[in-house]
Amino acid sequence: MNDTPVQTTNYVADPGRIADLARHIREGELSPADLVRGCLDRIKVTEPAIKAWREVCVDTVVTEAEQRAKEVEGGIVCGPLHGIPVGIKDIIDVAGVPTRCNSLSRAGAAPATADAEIVSALRVAGALILGKTETTEFAYFNPSPARNPHNIEHTPGGSSSGSAAAVAAGTVPAALGTQTMASVNRPAAYCGIAAFKPSTRLFSTFGIEPLSTLYDTVGFYGWSVPDAAAVFDAVCPTHARPGWKELRDSPLTIVALQDPFIEEADDEIKQAVERVAERLAAASHAVEAKHSRVSFNQLYDLHLLTMEYEIGRIQRRLLDEPEGRVGIKLIEAIRRGNKIADSAYLDARRKLDEVRIEFFDAFRGVDAFLWPATPKTAPKGIAWTGEPKFISPWTALGGPVVTMPAGCAADGLPIGCLVTGAPGSDFRFGRIACRIAEAAEAHGTAS
Amino acid sequence: MNDTPVQTTNYVADPGRIADLARHIREGELSPADLVRGCLDRIKVTEPAIKAWREVCVDTVVTEAEQRAKEVEGGIVCGPLHGIPVGIKDIIDVAGVPTRCNSLSRAGAAPATADAEIVSALRVAGALILGKTETTEFAYFNPSPARNPHNIEHTPGGSSSGSAAAVAAGTVPAALGTQTMASVNRPAAYCGIAAFKPSTRLFSTFGIEPLSTLYDTVGFYGWSVPDAAAVFDAVCPTHARPGWKELRDSPLTIVALQDPFIEEADDEIKQAVERVAERLAAASHAVEAKHSRVSFNQLYDLHLLTMEYEIGRIQRRLLDEPEGRVGIKLIEAIRRGNKIADSAYLDARRKLDEVRIEFFDAFRGVDAFLWPATPKTAPKGIAWTGEPKFISPWTALGGPVVTMPAGCAADGLPIGCLVTGAPGSDFRFGRIACRIAEAAEAHGTAS
Repeated sequence: MNDTPVQTTNYVADPGRIADLARHIREGELSPADLVRGCLDRIKVTEPAIKAWREVCVDTVVTEAEQRAKEVEGGIVCGPLHGIPVGIKDIIDVAGVPTRCNSLSRAGAAPATADAEIVSALRVAGALILGKTETTEFAYFNPSPARNPHNIEHTPGGSSSGSAAAVAAGTVPAALGTQTMASVNRPAAYCGIAAFKPSTRLFSTFGIEPLSTLYDTVGFYGWSVPDAAAVFDAVCPTHARPGWKELRDSPLTIVALQDPFIEEADDEIKQAVERVAERLAAASHAVEAKHSRVSFNQLYDLHLLTMEYEIGRIQRRLLDEPEGRVGIKLIEAIRRGNKIADSAYLDARRKLDEVRIEFFDAFRGVDAFLWPATPKTAPKGIAWTGEPKFISPWTALGGPVVTMPAGCAADGLPIGCLVTGAPGSDFRFGRIACRIAEAAEAHGTAS
Repeated sequence: MNDTPVQTTNYVADPGRIADLARHIREGELSPADLVRGCLDRIKVTEPAIKAWREVCVDTVVTEAEQRAKEVEGGIVCGPLHGIPVGIKDIIDVAGVPTRCNSLSRAGAAPATADAEIVSALRVAGALILGKTETTEFAYFNPSPARNPHNIEHTPGGSSSGSAAAVAAGTVPAALGTQTMASVNRPAAYCGIAAFKPSTRLFSTFGIEPLSTLYDTVGFYGWSVPDAAAVFDAVCPTHARPGWKELRDSPLTIVALQDPFIEEADDEIKQAVERVAERLAAASHAVEAKHSRVSFNQLYDLHLLTMEYEIGRIQRRLLDEPEGRVGIKLIEAIRRGNKIADSAYLDARRKLDEVRIEFFDAFRGVDAFLWPATPKTAPKGIAWTGEPKFISPWTALGGPVVTMPAGCAADGLPIGCLVTGAPGSDFRFGRIACRIAEAAEAHGTAS
């Protein structure tokens, strides 16, 4: 592909809403093959500038799309994502394709022999694997070539940079990312799209390159919150669905959470979250600003310590790679991690368990929390994937974390609002987040 | 160790109940170091005949036990398993120890650099890692050297053969196994101990050698049902605890499930399950014999097809090993699996999802099901680990599956009764299973 950036700065396009696309396909009004060809055409237009895709599985995806089209003609619908193309972050195995993790150490990797379990689950739901999207190296901080479709001079965030950029650029309706610190929710915020990061460790991580397995969690990108939630719903394992009751139409109880930790957010970003809160209140939901009894700064520290300890142990073999084959940021994290004592790690995990219980016990009956996704909009350049610190404490708290688009800043770049819930509430929370997004959007918050 | 079997046929001994041991440790009446030394002494007695342990971590476990003892003296209790020794099936990583999977292909394996996530969770709960227990090769059918403590001429079952035998022989109060087909629940039944296999894929499988990741699930062994449930409780992730309400004291609704599939069970085994049902009814629980609307034979077939497909893809690299380094049964399963078409696998997964919903929808409000764990008691010899077919349909249904000891047959070997529940009900189900075990035992069912 052409390496010269096209001289336009905004590549944002709605690739189509999943519920609509799926219905059109089921009703025979849209051929999955035409949908896929539309994605491939769009990739040709945007990819020279955006560089979101590591590898597009052109041959297999077209064949599979034609198969899905024939099935519809024969009255067969495999599942809720029948014929919907999805992009897969290139730390997640797709059978027949090498998983390169954006690392020179993986340059000669053989094709994966099996799909990651989450990829199998997508296929069971009828989805088509459009290809592999760019990632930071091993989902850590060394950047990918992907750029922000709102302004190619800015980062799309990381680590799931390609997945977020691919959806925001309108090349695919949905994509998979993974989050260890902030790697699903932050790229969504920077790229002005939605993401659904389920409860920490809710999904099997088989076939996903590990970084810190106390946190590594697969997450879902879509243009809107209902899009991201639809992908989650389609692959949610049976054991994560019980106890869910149809949501009443009654008002939701929402906390706009306050903590000294978020004072460093830009005023524009604070105001965007406040605007969401106001619009939700105007839509008759019970919204209240409340302080957290647990310190987000402490949560951030506990998360960082436990994560680096695990990176050190889990990826220790990367220290044996020849110099230059693994980025220095990752090597340094591995070295830092290996200096952390076992006892410090175990104590931090115990403390985290306590803090998690204390936090959610203090907020029983709360349906969702609002919180800014990032202190600032996407930084300029692609060397720095941006500040993860507003998100990692939520990853540590362990519940579902949704990124909801919340308008744009004066620099034209998107602002993301986090909508979060309690661990294990995922299936119900998907519906809560959709109601919140609807109320916020109905009142014009999202641009 | 001495390879000549000691001339005794029954090595069964209660290693102590976990709740009691934990309380004695917390209250300073039992030193974790003494408990560990007791385990090591018992291993010396039983191991020449039982061969349950692959490697005992003598040095590290004694040091850690002394550390736990000091902590208690200082008023520190790490968690509910503070000072409790646990055995780890040797397909699960323990940092510093090679994971050999009972395979010649792993003879030169380097020590694992990181604990499996489930092992970390055990350490967070305060447990001590006593060592690695024997497994069938890669948790498939090629047997381990372990023997049944009730009669060393019989198999302890597989694949978690060493873990079940180690607990039954009284060498350790608890152990980890994994189940893909029947590999936790069957060895428990054969060895006359309890097991708690949680909902399929409820726990992270990071650091566990994969076989078929649609099913691979870590499970817990204890002497009694409350022992196994206590280990589950101690490591249950936050997201799997919500929605749990204190169980009422009111009677449980229990179905003694009927299906043509179980007609091949020995009369003694059918009668043992009927006896459990009678004793539960006598304890005022509502027990009813009901037929399944879904076919267990179909479930068995769907499970086998999807499992072998995955074994084929996931372990395909084992086909490249020099001849003799991987057992022929596993090689044949990999070859069979690779002949199964992608479409057949995906269709079977879709069908399984349907059947699972149909089954549990038909039994709403049921607290637990009773079912024989195996058609016969443990076979003679150790070449054949026994029939998994009564258990694998439950693995496919996806809910928690408890093995409860239910007396012995005329041959002196134990009979296991399965107590099963709905996917995702695990945390509540642990309490249900304990109530059932209590009622069954109070009436003398378990010997």
